Amino acid sequence: MTTLADVARAIHSMQVRGAPLIGATAAYGVALAMAAGADEPALIAALATLAATRPTAVNLRWALARMERLLLPLPAAKRCAAARREARAIAAEDAAANAAIGSHGLALLNSLAASLAPSRRRINLMTHCNAGWLATVAHGTALAPVYAAHAAGLPMHVWVSETRPRNQGLLTAWELAQANVPHTLVVDNAAGLLMMQGRVDLVIVGADRIAANGDTANKVGTYLKALAARAHGLPFYVAAPLSTIDFACPGGGAIPIEERDGGELAAGDLPVANPAFDVTPAGLITGIITEFGIKKPEALRELVKKA
Amino acid sequence: MTTLADVARAIHSMQVRGAPLIGATAAYGVALAMAAGADEPALIAALATLAATRPTAVNLRWALARMERLLLPLPAAKRCAAARREARAIAAEDAAANAAIGSHGLALLNSLAASLAPSRRRINLMTHCNAGWLATVAHGTALAPVYAAHAAGLPMHVWVSETRPRNQGLLTAWELAQANVPHTLVVDNAAGLLMMQGRVDLVIVGADRIAANGDTANKVGTYLKALAARAHGLPFYVAAPLSTIDFACPGGGAIPIEERDGGELAAGDLPVANPAFDVTPAGLITGIITEFGIKKPEALRELVKKA
Repeated sequence: MTTLADVARAIHSMQVRGAPLIGATAAYGVALAMAAGADEPALIAALATLAATRPTAVNLRWALARMERLLLPLPAAKRCAAARREARAIAAEDAAANAAIGSHGLALLNSLAASLAPSRRRINLMTHCNAGWLATVAHGTALAPVYAAHAAGLPMHVWVSETRPRNQGLLTAWELAQANVPHTLVVDNAAGLLMMQGRVDLVIVGADRIAANGDTANKVGTYLKALAARAHGLPFYVAAPLSTIDFACPGGGAIPIEERDGGELAAGDLPVANPAFDVTPAGLITGIITEFGIKKPEALRELVKKA
Repeated sequence: MTTLADVARAIHSMQVRGAPLIGATAAYGVALAMAAGADEPALIAALATLAATRPTAVNLRWALARMERLLLPLPAAKRCAAARREARAIAAEDAAANAAIGSHGLALLNSLAASLAPSRRRINLMTHCNAGWLATVAHGTALAPVYAAHAAGLPMHVWVSETRPRNQGLLTAWELAQANVPHTLVVDNAAGLLMMQGRVDLVIVGADRIAANGDTANKVGTYLKALAARAHGLPFYVAAPLSTIDFACPGGGAIPIEERDGGELAAGDLPVANPAFDVTPAGLITGIITEFGIKKPEALRELVKKA
């Protein structure tokens, strides 16, 4: 990508997707725009163009607000270099957050492994969509604990749900294969059965926006997995950096849910609805794995001082 | 289909699918086999061949047991004509059951419509998989009430879930379009969000096997919809004829769940699991719409005298 238009198109079409990666990429989009002309109208137009690409992931808005706060007061001549530095900083912070999430998640998985019967050889983790390398700057949010556990020698197996309509489960399966983490792809519909059969130990998913009360928007279908986890007494964790928490949003009802083109279902000219996200109520979430540790949803507000 | 092998292949490959239609088709398969040779080994081989096609839908076993009970005591010379008559009877009974299920379901939908606010113009019904014309001998189980309501002038809209991996939702959408019933196709993942948004009034699904205690095996993903319906206080109904109830099966844990070829996911050579059904516990089911009326799951045993 070499222009603002490239970046906007890549985010809108989901060539670049995953809330943290969208945020970092948008920051670089501002930097590319500033390289082409850094006066105030150009800055404002770049911010507006990028903000309009996708509505749900708050990391996008968060990154753009950060760029605006930094760049708007600067003289135009300084904006280009400052924008590149800030984009690089946002990316580096996301990579560091990935690592910290992996390390907090590893502690969680270690303690879960200790609670399993000795005859159980491995942890069966279910995830949804893709919240790994391909969705973040480094090695992921929901998958960071998986990679950390695998590296630490903890036997892991991941249930990868297909994630219709865009099939991001195939991205997750591809990532896990690269890392030699055992995994099995299933249709989204299979989540309840697998839990009922005792073949799932916990669920970890990423997030696109976490409201201040802990309600979490993530890829559509997440909520069904959370309901099933609750029905079977299984822990359900959300893994996300601070940049995904929207402290200005009081609850899930205030999160805009993106409706995407029905063509994504590849159903010809049938009447189609295609909401891209759903909201999992805080009450179904065991904990939120952030770079600052694992928080109960109701304790999220403690992090507002770090935002 | 002109031979036993044709019928067995059609059922195994799901060219013919839907529990009631599988039962009736298997009965005709026995009749075709008897036309080619009606001695006892041929009869026993035909029954075994058809029984091996699919494990979960009990209508298959029910129809084969009925054919066996009738045909085994007969002299070989009488088996061919008797088999045709019995297959025709099974088909006619299924069509009558469809009509009765439609009529009991219509009463249910009428009373639901009466409870909606006057400003609400229509009932939003969610279904899963295909339990209509293409799954039964006549106009369906889960869809029979929809067709009855539409014919009675009750405004209906149906949420049709895609039903991965085989996408039987497309069959349902096709059926509803033929009948001019308003409908919208969604990915399976969207069910929870739509209920949370108040866009669903009730769920009606078909069944492949109902245990004596009311636990119900149906197309994988049904259980997730039942959990979501419960979370949102929505009625969740199963529509099925008596031939789908397995009084010999005490509970859902005893229902065999078919594992189908992973190639159905079209995921190349990725490691895949592909269970075709799941079990919805009786406690999540508001009622079972049978040809003998709507029964609470715990009252199903009352019907054993009719079996």
